[in-house]
Amino acid sequence: MIHEGAYPVEPWHVREIELDLDTIAQSESVFALSNGHVGLRGNLDEGEPHGLPGTYLNSFYETRPLPYAESGFGYPEDGQSLIDVTNGKILRLLVDDEPFDVRYGDLVEHERVLDLRAGTLTRTARWRSPAGKQILLTSVRLVSLTQRSVVAIEYTVEAVDEFTRVTVQSELVANEDQPEQSDDPRVSAVLRSPLQSVASEVADQGALLMHRTKSSDLMMAAAMDHLVEVPGRVEVDTDAGDDWARTTVICGLRPGQKLRIVKYVAYGWSSLRSRPALKDQVSAAIAGARYTGWDGLLEAQRDYLDDFWDAADVEIDGDPVSQQAVRFGIFHVLQASARAERRAIAGKGLTGTGYDGHAFWDTEGYVLPLLTYTMPEAAADALRWRATTLDLARERAAELDLKGASFPWRTIRGQECSAYWPAGTAAWHVNADIAMAVDRYRLVTGDDSLEADCGLEMLIETARLWMSLGHYDRHGVWHLAGVTGPDEYTAVVRDNVFTNLMAAHNLRIAVDACARRPAEAGAFGASTEETAAWRNAAAAVHIPYDDELGVHEQCDGFTTLREWDFDDNTEYPLLLNEPYVRLYPSQVIKQADLVLAMHWQGHAFTPEQKARNVDYYERRTTRDSSLSACTQAVMCAEVGHLELAHDYASEAALIDLRDLHGNSRDGLHMASLAGGWIAWVSGFGGLRDDEGELSFAPQLPSGITHLRFRLRWRNFRLIVDVAHEQATYTLRDGPDGSLTIQHSGEHVELTTQEPTTMPVVAREALLPPPPQPPGREPLRRN
Amino acid sequence: MIHEGAYPVEPWHVREIELDLDTIAQSESVFALSNGHVGLRGNLDEGEPHGLPGTYLNSFYETRPLPYAESGFGYPEDGQSLIDVTNGKILRLLVDDEPFDVRYGDLVEHERVLDLRAGTLTRTARWRSPAGKQILLTSVRLVSLTQRSVVAIEYTVEAVDEFTRVTVQSELVANEDQPEQSDDPRVSAVLRSPLQSVASEVADQGALLMHRTKSSDLMMAAAMDHLVEVPGRVEVDTDAGDDWARTTVICGLRPGQKLRIVKYVAYGWSSLRSRPALKDQVSAAIAGARYTGWDGLLEAQRDYLDDFWDAADVEIDGDPVSQQAVRFGIFHVLQASARAERRAIAGKGLTGTGYDGHAFWDTEGYVLPLLTYTMPEAAADALRWRATTLDLARERAAELDLKGASFPWRTIRGQECSAYWPAGTAAWHVNADIAMAVDRYRLVTGDDSLEADCGLEMLIETARLWMSLGHYDRHGVWHLAGVTGPDEYTAVVRDNVFTNLMAAHNLRIAVDACARRPAEAGAFGASTEETAAWRNAAAAVHIPYDDELGVHEQCDGFTTLREWDFDDNTEYPLLLNEPYVRLYPSQVIKQADLVLAMHWQGHAFTPEQKARNVDYYERRTTRDSSLSACTQAVMCAEVGHLELAHDYASEAALIDLRDLHGNSRDGLHMASLAGGWIAWVSGFGGLRDDEGELSFAPQLPSGITHLRFRLRWRNFRLIVDVAHEQATYTLRDGPDGSLTIQHSGEHVELTTQEPTTMPVVAREALLPPPPQPPGREPLRRN
Repeated sequence: MIHEGAYPVEPWHVREIELDLDTIAQSESVFALSNGHVGLRGNLDEGEPHGLPGTYLNSFYETRPLPYAESGFGYPEDGQSLIDVTNGKILRLLVDDEPFDVRYGDLVEHERVLDLRAGTLTRTARWRSPAGKQILLTSVRLVSLTQRSVVAIEYTVEAVDEFTRVTVQSELVANEDQPEQSDDPRVSAVLRSPLQSVASEVADQGALLMHRTKSSDLMMAAAMDHLVEVPGRVEVDTDAGDDWARTTVICGLRPGQKLRIVKYVAYGWSSLRSRPALKDQVSAAIAGARYTGWDGLLEAQRDYLDDFWDAADVEIDGDPVSQQAVRFGIFHVLQASARAERRAIAGKGLTGTGYDGHAFWDTEGYVLPLLTYTMPEAAADALRWRATTLDLARERAAELDLKGASFPWRTIRGQECSAYWPAGTAAWHVNADIAMAVDRYRLVTGDDSLEADCGLEMLIETARLWMSLGHYDRHGVWHLAGVTGPDEYTAVVRDNVFTNLMAAHNLRIAVDACARRPAEAGAFGASTEETAAWRNAAAAVHIPYDDELGVHEQCDGFTTLREWDFDDNTEYPLLLNEPYVRLYPSQVIKQADLVLAMHWQGHAFTPEQKARNVDYYERRTTRDSSLSACTQAVMCAEVGHLELAHDYASEAALIDLRDLHGNSRDGLHMASLAGGWIAWVSGFGGLRDDEGELSFAPQLPSGITHLRFRLRWRNFRLIVDVAHEQATYTLRDGPDGSLTIQHSGEHVELTTQEPTTMPVVAREALLPPPPQPPGREPLRRN
Repeated sequence: MIHEGAYPVEPWHVREIELDLDTIAQSESVFALSNGHVGLRGNLDEGEPHGLPGTYLNSFYETRPLPYAESGFGYPEDGQSLIDVTNGKILRLLVDDEPFDVRYGDLVEHERVLDLRAGTLTRTARWRSPAGKQILLTSVRLVSLTQRSVVAIEYTVEAVDEFTRVTVQSELVANEDQPEQSDDPRVSAVLRSPLQSVASEVADQGALLMHRTKSSDLMMAAAMDHLVEVPGRVEVDTDAGDDWARTTVICGLRPGQKLRIVKYVAYGWSSLRSRPALKDQVSAAIAGARYTGWDGLLEAQRDYLDDFWDAADVEIDGDPVSQQAVRFGIFHVLQASARAERRAIAGKGLTGTGYDGHAFWDTEGYVLPLLTYTMPEAAADALRWRATTLDLARERAAELDLKGASFPWRTIRGQECSAYWPAGTAAWHVNADIAMAVDRYRLVTGDDSLEADCGLEMLIETARLWMSLGHYDRHGVWHLAGVTGPDEYTAVVRDNVFTNLMAAHNLRIAVDACARRPAEAGAFGASTEETAAWRNAAAAVHIPYDDELGVHEQCDGFTTLREWDFDDNTEYPLLLNEPYVRLYPSQVIKQADLVLAMHWQGHAFTPEQKARNVDYYERRTTRDSSLSACTQAVMCAEVGHLELAHDYASEAALIDLRDLHGNSRDGLHMASLAGGWIAWVSGFGGLRDDEGELSFAPQLPSGITHLRFRLRWRNFRLIVDVAHEQATYTLRDGPDGSLTIQHSGEHVELTTQEPTTMPVVAREALLPPPPQPPGREPLRRN
């Protein structure tokens, strides 16, 4: 856990004013910079102490064999692990003869600031060496959102009291030592020395290292160059070995004098391009960065972010903690996605090696809703990445004797990397999640190029998967057995409501897409007979419901399973303290599942059912998954438990600023950070689109005076400003100046002429707020 | 597969008259010798060629880490693997300068004979060396049933045409090279060089090697000594290294002259005893063997077997193939069990390293019924072995948050070694299988010492396990969810009928045992309240039944799962060709499960239900498990499909003589071999005891004229002689000369005065014989 006061509450910054070595790994994740292509953990400039040194390139991974003590047919043989690539952010400092190291001497002042509008990480350190020399160090680091290969660091050292000889060693380091792996199975397998040297080159003030992975056979290049400014004499020298390059800058500073170094680092990688091509690529990136210059990079970064925030910001009046946390979350999701450009958006972005750097359904299910409404081009890129893996998904389906395509539960490159099929392959819903994201993109943006280019094929192939997975019983009811829904504490079940509703949705949108594009559908072999069969199955899908209790069953028979004994077994997360063999057959839930179905497929439930279902499942949900709190927020808000929803909304957004799940050291939780946005926008704003319309049903918890959020719909930008009594919709831009939305079930036409204000339709809770399992009550906001 | 004519049909021998190097590994299993303490694969005397060199000591294993790509709480961390210990059966021969090797020169004659009454393996080879010298080699090998540490080999070489210089190197070899592992996950992990040298000692005509395992820290000693007889001059010399010892015998033979060597080998191992103690132990064993002498060992072996067969033989008139196969099976089960003496009886006995040498529920479920009725002291020993692991089972239960004891799914020493919990830990029925075997022992033998010493405690602790696993629903029905029954193609289900009936049986026999021994039960804390709760749960257990189809559901909802597409997917065994994620939610069955429930808990089903259930499940059972055919035989016989039962009875017994499952190379299938006995005795004899009485309901298939089997009940020996029209019961021995049995539902009093003949009550089949999945029809006997 990170204690509550660690980061002072500020609307646009995350500021650390004390360096706590016990939580240094967590702070490295919090202060990570990325543009979705290159990612740097917030390691100190001097490289150590560190929790986990980390420099990542999107989809630059090594394969490793997946071991099984008892193997089975269809188990993936190879895993993929994101690797720590050549570290270009190291600048070591010697003060006279003393290495600058915060563990020695006296750290008189320390501050790190992540600026969510500037897109920079600034560090200030005032340090007195063991010999008594004091220096003031300032570094500003950015990973460029406009030049995707470029990292830049402005590094300034000032002598304070007396003349000081200052030596800076600016480095590229490959194959850094990695700390020992944790026991938590969710933490990545750390790969040791995964890079083989290909080339190293040295220039006056810079160098280049090229490496290749042993097994996945990917080649990367990292280059650095420096601008050195200092009054008086300075010596600059560069040398390099296989796994390192070092530019050494030596000078003497009188009190008040400063050494300023601007370090440009560029990265490139490819599985195809030649050594010269890759070398030229990073050299060009360095040249481009020098051409733009430090100030130019800073300015472009801020412009990019200004534009982003203009259509993405969420303003929360009355809860500054949530305000900071939600912006922090949006910022990191942007960082994970902005320049991912047809590569995967991993569960932890490029902030750590947790989950081996894999992408899951988190991307389509949690990250893409945010991106689709705020940065649709990034959402399209992410879906086009999925489309590039369609052939692999078809091969996987064929291996499993299934039709269509079966997308992987976890992957970097597209191959299934899940070594535990009950919570991997059996979680077929990932396919419907992808399909839903494809369809939402079309709906929200009005851009049908994605559907035309690859979306239709993905919809058809996932529909075929569902048809081969499902079957009709002798009464004509359509079932899906042997599936695992979102809740990983109940696996390989029959008729999981979430999965069944999502599969039916997948089938229906595939039918509709084929109807929109009959010629292309025909080319993919989707006949009217086939699409009619999809529609029939969707209409006949079984939705288990417990008539006696008046609640939906998460899966067939769920409500008659044994109850979990929360009095005896309350060490969370349960998966680290209880065996699956006990968890699976109990009414204990890791994360919103039936409750998520009510969010994503809300039209399938009556308001009364929603209220009773929330009440039933809240009592049994441990929230051991980081994907849960945001959904609980949304559905608690919908059924009128607004204070509880507020608590969950904060949980979702604060997950990493407070290290609520105790594993932020391994990287940030992108889905939960996106979930912070979801909780406020879909929870208190009531945003829904599952019936093909833009709908809102806003209502605020008591502590919030105003909620203001921005989003894109077609060519419009929309500002929704919610107060307790009324909500105001402001439509900007757009082609013809008018847009029909739903406000609390009522159709309203918005125009770009003037804002539209509507009264808030208060929802009364049918039932009192439910309790949670002991010890899993969310942090209370009031 | 081993072709049909490989072993000529003889009633008491398995004879090989041609050496087929393609099936040499299978023949090594078939010709394995063992007494349950020491096991030798049927490797050629000269060591090679071989399929798998194998010398085993019961429960002498090495531990190895079990790898998991994705770990989980409660997964066992260490596996146990039976290891190939010091090979004492090697006698290499040089004919002049030419090593005797069947791959070179000319094997003029070859014969190996396993004699089921003598308990020996005899080999005869007439060989012409590449240089043209001909010799006649005879070796007779035995693993003593009366001196459990002792192996003896009589090895005779005769010169045929001309004077021949003969050199025999008789060896002890540790850490033999092992062949490459197969891809089949069921095959053992082969451990390389698991033995560390502790000591080696050399005497004139013998030597001793001591080794220790690296990780499991077990110490073993192997010693050899020789008796050498030859006309004329002979030189005998012995030397040794860390991993080998060699006694070299050199002599010259004129045509017709013979060199005869009797090699005595003794083994001992311990986890506790000191080096000197272990050394003395094997030296004493060698001394004992020398004292008894070769002829004495042979005679004792035959006496032991005569006594065994007198109460265990099954005679089948009309099917000599089955006759041979059933005796072969009984013989190997005896070999696996006779001197196991409170160590595990492994699934493959001591005939190979398949399944890592682990013991499963096979022991209590299949092997112990045979032993209890034919060699009850061995059954008692096996159950006392289980009792020695009770503390480990209690620890395992506690780890899983359960009460009582949870016995391992697979183990050598008692710790759970199953690395795949859905078909391991979740197969809780192993506990009820053990409990049933405990109770059967008391019932059949009348010996209550086992119950008093340890059986009661096992019954109580397994009853407690069930109580903590089960739960009542809101209607007062008792359920077991998250369980895996015998059928491993359907796992982690609700209310598996087999498991539920067996759990209820376990609870009831625990109640009864507590009632018999109230004082001891009290000492174990089993109050009347507790036992009343057991009885209530047993009475309230849910037994899923499909009213529409009129059949029992193997588990809740089974009959509504999708049907397996046997037209498309018929590569058997399915587990090597289809993923679990597809198998589990389909109506496809690996092995008798509901059908096994009808055998072991037959009183819970009406005759009509049995007939309909057999018909339903036969069509869906792939028999991919070797545990299936015998049960299908029994239930097909009971419902009147006598010809089909005959087919299955043969399948069970022929499994290894024909290599029907394609993996006999890894060791013999003890449960299926015992199943050969079960098929005839419980199938055509109709033996049952699940209601506490000795019951028969004999009826023969058309091709069989007589079935005669022998068994022990209390102090009686009983011969049951079944013909088509009548059955004759002959009671021998016994205290008071009379015994009441059931014959086809009618109580009959037998006396030792004279045989009792009863008419056979023919059972008409309610339904026509069912079909099997395509390609899984059993071999037809007619």
